[in-house]
Amino acid sequence: MYQTVTAEIVEKLKEICGARNVIFNDEEKLEAYSHDEVAEKEYAHMPEVVVKPGSAGEVAAVMKLANELKIPVTPRGAGTGLSGGAVPIYGGILLSVENLNRILEVDLDNLMVVVESGVITNDINEELKKHGLFFAGYPMSLQSCFIGGNVAENAGGGRAIKYGVTGRYIMGLEVVLPTGELVWFGGKRVKDVTGYNLVQLMVGSEGTLGVITKVIIKLLPLPTAKVDLLALFPDIETAINVVPLIMTKAGIIPTGIEFMDRLSVTTTHQYLGEKMAYPETGAVLLIELDGTSQEQLRNDAMAVSELLMENGVIEVYAAETPDTQEKIWKIRRNVAEAFKAIDPVQTLEDIVVPIASIPKVIPMLSGLSEKYNVLIPCYGHAGDGNLHATVVKKAEMDMETWKKVLPQVLADMYRAVHELGGTISGEHGIGHKRKEFLPLVMGEPEINLMKRIKLAFDPNNILNPGKIFDIA
Amino acid sequence: MYQTVTAEIVEKLKEICGARNVIFNDEEKLEAYSHDEVAEKEYAHMPEVVVKPGSAGEVAAVMKLANELKIPVTPRGAGTGLSGGAVPIYGGILLSVENLNRILEVDLDNLMVVVESGVITNDINEELKKHGLFFAGYPMSLQSCFIGGNVAENAGGGRAIKYGVTGRYIMGLEVVLPTGELVWFGGKRVKDVTGYNLVQLMVGSEGTLGVITKVIIKLLPLPTAKVDLLALFPDIETAINVVPLIMTKAGIIPTGIEFMDRLSVTTTHQYLGEKMAYPETGAVLLIELDGTSQEQLRNDAMAVSELLMENGVIEVYAAETPDTQEKIWKIRRNVAEAFKAIDPVQTLEDIVVPIASIPKVIPMLSGLSEKYNVLIPCYGHAGDGNLHATVVKKAEMDMETWKKVLPQVLADMYRAVHELGGTISGEHGIGHKRKEFLPLVMGEPEINLMKRIKLAFDPNNILNPGKIFDIA
Repeated sequence: MYQTVTAEIVEKLKEICGARNVIFNDEEKLEAYSHDEVAEKEYAHMPEVVVKPGSAGEVAAVMKLANELKIPVTPRGAGTGLSGGAVPIYGGILLSVENLNRILEVDLDNLMVVVESGVITNDINEELKKHGLFFAGYPMSLQSCFIGGNVAENAGGGRAIKYGVTGRYIMGLEVVLPTGELVWFGGKRVKDVTGYNLVQLMVGSEGTLGVITKVIIKLLPLPTAKVDLLALFPDIETAINVVPLIMTKAGIIPTGIEFMDRLSVTTTHQYLGEKMAYPETGAVLLIELDGTSQEQLRNDAMAVSELLMENGVIEVYAAETPDTQEKIWKIRRNVAEAFKAIDPVQTLEDIVVPIASIPKVIPMLSGLSEKYNVLIPCYGHAGDGNLHATVVKKAEMDMETWKKVLPQVLADMYRAVHELGGTISGEHGIGHKRKEFLPLVMGEPEINLMKRIKLAFDPNNILNPGKIFDIA
Repeated sequence: MYQTVTAEIVEKLKEICGARNVIFNDEEKLEAYSHDEVAEKEYAHMPEVVVKPGSAGEVAAVMKLANELKIPVTPRGAGTGLSGGAVPIYGGILLSVENLNRILEVDLDNLMVVVESGVITNDINEELKKHGLFFAGYPMSLQSCFIGGNVAENAGGGRAIKYGVTGRYIMGLEVVLPTGELVWFGGKRVKDVTGYNLVQLMVGSEGTLGVITKVIIKLLPLPTAKVDLLALFPDIETAINVVPLIMTKAGIIPTGIEFMDRLSVTTTHQYLGEKMAYPETGAVLLIELDGTSQEQLRNDAMAVSELLMENGVIEVYAAETPDTQEKIWKIRRNVAEAFKAIDPVQTLEDIVVPIASIPKVIPMLSGLSEKYNVLIPCYGHAGDGNLHATVVKKAEMDMETWKKVLPQVLADMYRAVHELGGTISGEHGIGHKRKEFLPLVMGEPEINLMKRIKLAFDPNNILNPGKIFDIA
């Protein structure tokens, strides 16, 4: 169905992007573009050719050519994705935006920044810091990910309660459509109802609807003060039940509320060789507050602490300085590593449920864990219901059994999550890692509608095909 | 192209919705459904039949029938729109959601509310007040508009700087597709990247992609304290230049910043028979602050006032009580009435520009005003660049001349706004009032893409046809 990339086509691509921005016939260099951060090798696939356009015009020329010849094109940011979104599963052209790496304008009058899609997210905030501003999107990988990938995946992270996710700050996008037209959606406008919201349709579309070349981002004043609270609880219910109370009773919207279950906490302590202060700890919350006044924050932290104490906390620690904050965060930062030490064979999941349903998730996961003889530690962003349950193979289980049980674990988990009003991805995306499971949480009319939208953008289905769903 | 509504079809509609929920052959009752709040009569059009379904299932049955028979269906909320979005310009079926008027669930654990689309927006907030919560969407017509219409138009209002517009709070939608399928997009999930963002594609789609039947809304803690500042400036530049400084220099995000130009201020004072305290006033800002601590707000108000004084304000008045706040708002609330008294023949516009470009809008409007001999007062939401420039006929101009010059004034205005990086609607929508002007601010590839998306939802183009654009 798709055309393969011939030497003649490679010549044309070299004419468009320059010879040094095209990789062909070089296994070693191509390999780096065959996977993202998904651990499992079976989700990787080699591209036939890699191109690194230096301008939106070059991207458009590549797309026009590919659309004419029906060659699949997979756009790629920094490759930090967690669902295989940037993996060229049909080969073809891998289009890396790494050369679109300029911060074009810091617009202080409009409180917006204009960047190319290949800029590292943290570099934007480093530049903005000078002006007392920041981009409030906060993916955990911000030191290495590209802003274009953040937009394509609608990256989330740990600060969504207060700041929302990436999409909230995306005001305008320059996009190359699958058919090669260069278009602009939105602009430096805080309000805009002129036609459909194509900006937010692009956000989170996983590179299937267009290649993002420029991004206009709305900025906020940089918070100057921060207080973190570490709260230990006897059990999960007590911990989770307090989460909405912080907002309703104390009237405070924290920056983030991270959660770890007992298995995550004990395993990570063991991994780090640290002793638990309260061995009876059944769950932990990490509550972040930020703002412009240290005094106000101290009052807020006091109010939250009192609320926690009225609601069954074992102990609360507050941290106001970077040093003490780092100490508080140490366990949370090392959870993933701790479980990789147990067995590297595992799958990082990204389920999301209504926050009130979190207490029901943990017994459900324990049930699956027993039924299938796997570990399922659970940690993540409690304030927004997004839990990185991670299915980990026990060291003693052989790979054949693992490969048989894993799809069953996932299907059971996803069905249960769906019944709780949740879904299978809060921030990592569907990619090709989860596409076979999409019908478990979404009806046929909704999926068919998405396919028709895909074809409205991409009639030949050449842009990142085989992601989210397959077009028959 | 479309089938007309016969007596036989009316019988089928009565079977679906019940006889008392169908209006047919009753000019007087039908007339109420022939227009929205657009003042100009030429934008009105009579429906052939009005149906008022009582459930999503009934809506689906109506849509299925209409799609089979190719009868146009125009969905309608409270009819408070300002772009003709709910006007049945091809006749056919007017589908009113007025009977879908139940608040279904106040979910305190998830901080969300589930409502049917025909609930009056303010009724939701009255119910939420009891629980110390609110829905932060804030259309100016909230006393009468329906939440379904707010979603369909992505209603804005005066508090978008701090709270954003309607779309930010819409987490899930039950929708009847033009082809009659009943679907759910999103849910009670703060984060969700499972497939395309169909929730936000529906938001602001002006009833052209589906009929909204249920809405899940995210809530915030109700602010308990409020301070308003009225600031008088010698000229527009001084007033507008201070707007971004409030956020960047003072680090404060106000709830809203309303703006009035000299013509609006002087005309409204004359209309109300009030004397201006400072006759040299060239522009006014109304700055709203809200929060949970009166003390903190007082400090913020002080910081903002100091900033204003350092930046050329003539005088600042602060109001902390509802009485004094009402006084401060009196002029702003009466602007529209003041100009209706001059001549009721006028068109309320809804242009939006990057906030830094507002100073350039006013001389542009003055130029048009002189060139075409019309009044163009300008007021609105300065904090988000959304200005309700209103083209008002002078009493002495005859209607023939007015009808000739108005399209020229609008075309000139829209072109100028587009050059400033703005667009033709910030919160009122395109409807059929502005559709002929869309190509002035949007390229052909973008408009064609929207048409293809429309047809992906509505292959027979029967749902609210002739809005935003025409399908050839």
